[in-house]
Amino acid sequence: MIELHVDGKRLWATLHQLAEIGGTEAGGVARVALTDADKAGRDQFVEWLTDVGCTVHLDRMGNLFGRREGTDPNRDPVVIGSHLDSQPTGGKFDGAYGVMVGLEILRVLDDHQHRTKAPIEVVSWTNEEGARFPPAMLGSGVFGGEFSLEEGLSATASDGTVLLDELVRIGYSGSDACGGRPVGFYLEPHIEQGPILEAKDIAIGVVTGVQGIRWYDVSIKGFESHAGTTPMDRRSDAMLSAARLITAVDEIARRRPEGRSTVGVISSTPNSRNTVAGTVQLTVDLRHPNPDELAVMHDELIEAADSIFPVPSVEQIWYSPPVEFDAKVAEAIRQSATASGFEAIDIVSGAGHDAVYINRVAPTGMLFIPCEDGLSHNEAETITEQHSSAGAEVALQAVLQLAE
Amino acid sequence: MIELHVDGKRLWATLHQLAEIGGTEAGGVARVALTDADKAGRDQFVEWLTDVGCTVHLDRMGNLFGRREGTDPNRDPVVIGSHLDSQPTGGKFDGAYGVMVGLEILRVLDDHQHRTKAPIEVVSWTNEEGARFPPAMLGSGVFGGEFSLEEGLSATASDGTVLLDELVRIGYSGSDACGGRPVGFYLEPHIEQGPILEAKDIAIGVVTGVQGIRWYDVSIKGFESHAGTTPMDRRSDAMLSAARLITAVDEIARRRPEGRSTVGVISSTPNSRNTVAGTVQLTVDLRHPNPDELAVMHDELIEAADSIFPVPSVEQIWYSPPVEFDAKVAEAIRQSATASGFEAIDIVSGAGHDAVYINRVAPTGMLFIPCEDGLSHNEAETITEQHSSAGAEVALQAVLQLAE
Repeated sequence: MIELHVDGKRLWATLHQLAEIGGTEAGGVARVALTDADKAGRDQFVEWLTDVGCTVHLDRMGNLFGRREGTDPNRDPVVIGSHLDSQPTGGKFDGAYGVMVGLEILRVLDDHQHRTKAPIEVVSWTNEEGARFPPAMLGSGVFGGEFSLEEGLSATASDGTVLLDELVRIGYSGSDACGGRPVGFYLEPHIEQGPILEAKDIAIGVVTGVQGIRWYDVSIKGFESHAGTTPMDRRSDAMLSAARLITAVDEIARRRPEGRSTVGVISSTPNSRNTVAGTVQLTVDLRHPNPDELAVMHDELIEAADSIFPVPSVEQIWYSPPVEFDAKVAEAIRQSATASGFEAIDIVSGAGHDAVYINRVAPTGMLFIPCEDGLSHNEAETITEQHSSAGAEVALQAVLQLAE
Repeated sequence: MIELHVDGKRLWATLHQLAEIGGTEAGGVARVALTDADKAGRDQFVEWLTDVGCTVHLDRMGNLFGRREGTDPNRDPVVIGSHLDSQPTGGKFDGAYGVMVGLEILRVLDDHQHRTKAPIEVVSWTNEEGARFPPAMLGSGVFGGEFSLEEGLSATASDGTVLLDELVRIGYSGSDACGGRPVGFYLEPHIEQGPILEAKDIAIGVVTGVQGIRWYDVSIKGFESHAGTTPMDRRSDAMLSAARLITAVDEIARRRPEGRSTVGVISSTPNSRNTVAGTVQLTVDLRHPNPDELAVMHDELIEAADSIFPVPSVEQIWYSPPVEFDAKVAEAIRQSATASGFEAIDIVSGAGHDAVYINRVAPTGMLFIPCEDGLSHNEAETITEQHSSAGAEVALQAVLQLAE
C-alpha cells in the first residue's frame, strides 16, 4: 500500500485563492451566505470538485456535496467538510479550512488514483454563520432534523429577503432531499476559535464534544436611597447584590476545569452616582461538556443567588444540551495524529458547529487546529501554514482509516 | 421669666397652609425657585412676617430676612431659617419646615411681647434646591462666599432663563448686599432626609457636621473574548474586576460606622451575553465626616483597585471637604432638647444644606427631625405633627439661649 500525504503548500495556496473571493481590504473575508460572493465561492468550489473527477450534488437547502466513489458499493460515504459562508467581517479560515482540507484530500486521492473502500464526499453546508439568515447552522440543522425544510427555506434576513429566493437567485437551489442522504462518518476540521491549543503549543485538538449551555436572565430589586443619608446597614443595594452574584458565578466555573461562566450584560436603575441602585439586570451564561455537571452548576447558581441580599431573581431562558461526538471518529483522529508525529489533546468545543447537527444522524467528529490568540469572527483571524498542513494530514489519515 | 413654648398645632396648620402654594395633586409641592409659585410663597411669608411686626429685608440674591429687634443694640442677630423653594416634585417639609419654625418662634415672641437681647431674624435662602438654576444652595452660597454675586445672578436654567431676570420679574431682587450681613448664630431646623432618627425612634438630631464627599470615575479595560471558547484562567474579564471592586468599595465604608460608599452607575461593552466584557465603567461615591478618615478611605480604594485583575483605573473627579458645625450651637440644641424632655442624638448630615455655606461666616448649627422612611425629594415626603412640634420647641429654646 502506497503512503498518501497531503500537499501543505497546495492547501495553503488554495485557502488564499479562495480568500480572494469576498476578500476585504483588512485581510479578512466577507462571503456572507447566499450573496454574490457566496455564489462565486461555490462556483470556484464546484470547479475544483469537477477538476478532481467528483460528481456534484445539491440538496434543497443548497448544501453542496462533491462525491468520489469507493470500491465497495455497500459502504456509506465518509463525509468531510464545513462551510464556505463567512461573517460580514470574517476571517479566511473559519469554515473554509474544513472544506479546503476535504478538497485537498480529494486531490491527494486523485493524484494517486487511489480508491478508498467507502466513497468520499466533501460538503459545504449552507448558512453556517447565520449572520444574514438567522439562526446559525441552518443547512446542517435541516439536514440533521433540528429544523424543518420549510423553516430553513423561509429564514428571513433583516431586510425581508427570504433564503429560498436567494438560493434560487444564485443558482444553488438543488433538487436532492435535505437529510436522509447516507453518511457513514462525518469529519469536520476547523480552527479552534479559542486559545487552548496555542497556549499548550499543540497542533491537533481531538474534539470530543460541544459544551452544554444554560442562559439566564437575572433581575435584582433593591431599594433606591440616598448615597449620603442612608447608613450602610440600612441599604438594600441591588448593585452590591449583583457584584456578589458575579463573583459567585465566576467561582462556579472555576471549581471545575471544563466549566465556563460569564456575566456579559449588566444595567442598573436609576444609574445615578449618588443614589443606591434600586434595580440591576444582568445575564448569566453557564457551560459544561457534561450535562450532569452543568445541572450541578445550575443548582450552585440558584443556591448562590438565594444566599445574597437583596435576593436576585434567576430565570433560565435557554438550554442547549452538551453534544458528545462519536468515539470511533475521535479515536481515528487521535491515532492518525500520533502516527503522523503530531501531539494531540482531547478538547471540547466552546462554540457550535455544523457537526453538532450532523452528529444526530451519523457518527461524527471534529478536529481543531490552533488559531492565533484564539481570535475568530474577525478579519485578523490567522493560522500558520504549519498547523494548516498538520490538520490536513491528520484528517487525510483519519479519513483513509474510516473509509477502509 | 415667663416660660415660652411653641404652638405645635399652629405650626402644623401653617406648614399645610404654605404647602397649598404650589401644592400638587399627589400631596407634594412644586414651588421651584423664582417661579410664580415661589413668588406666591414669598408673598405669604412676607405677609406673615409683617403680621408679627418684623421688618423685611431683601438682598441682591433675593435672600429674604424678617427681623425682630432685640434689647441689646450691640448684639448680632440669631438667624434661623432654611428655604422655601422645592424640587419640581418635592415634599411639604424639605426647607419649608425650617422657615416655618422660624416664623413660629417669631409668633411666640410676639404673642408674649417678649424681647430677646439679640435680635432674631428668620431667613429664606434663594434657590437651595438648584433644580431650576444649578448649582444647589446658591443664595446661601453667595452669602457665604462660595460663589460670587455675579455667578449667582447669572445662573441659567436649561431653557436659557437667567436667575437675575426671574428675580426681577417676581419682584424679589433686593438692594441689600448679599453677604456681610451680621449673623451672631445661624440655626437651621430641617427634616433628616434619611432613616436614622426614625429607626432609633428619637425626635431630635443634633447635627454636628456634614460628610465629606469624594467622587470617582472608574474605568476597567479587560479583553473581549468568547464565553464558550475562552477558559476561565485565560480571561481578562472587566465585569469580574468590576464586581470585585464594588464589593471592596462596600467593605471600605462598612469598616467604619460613619462611612458611606456607593457604586451607583455601571455600564459595560460589548454588553453581549456570550462575550466576556471588554470594558466596564462605573462610579464610586465615598463619604465620611472626618477628612482624615475620608483620605484613608481614598487610600483603601486605590489599594483595592491595584489588587484586582484587570486593574481598574480610578480617577477622583470631585472632593467636597467635611463640614464641622459650631460646638456652641450644637450644645444649645442638645441642652434644649434635654430640658424639653426629648431624646437627642448627634448626627452627621449626609446631604448638603444652606447651613454648609453659612457655617463659613458665622457659628452655625442644624437640628434634624425624623421623616417617614427617610424619604425626601418626593411628593410622599412625610413627618408627624409630634416631631414637627418637638423640633420647633427645641429650636425655640436654643434660639432663646443663644439670644441671651
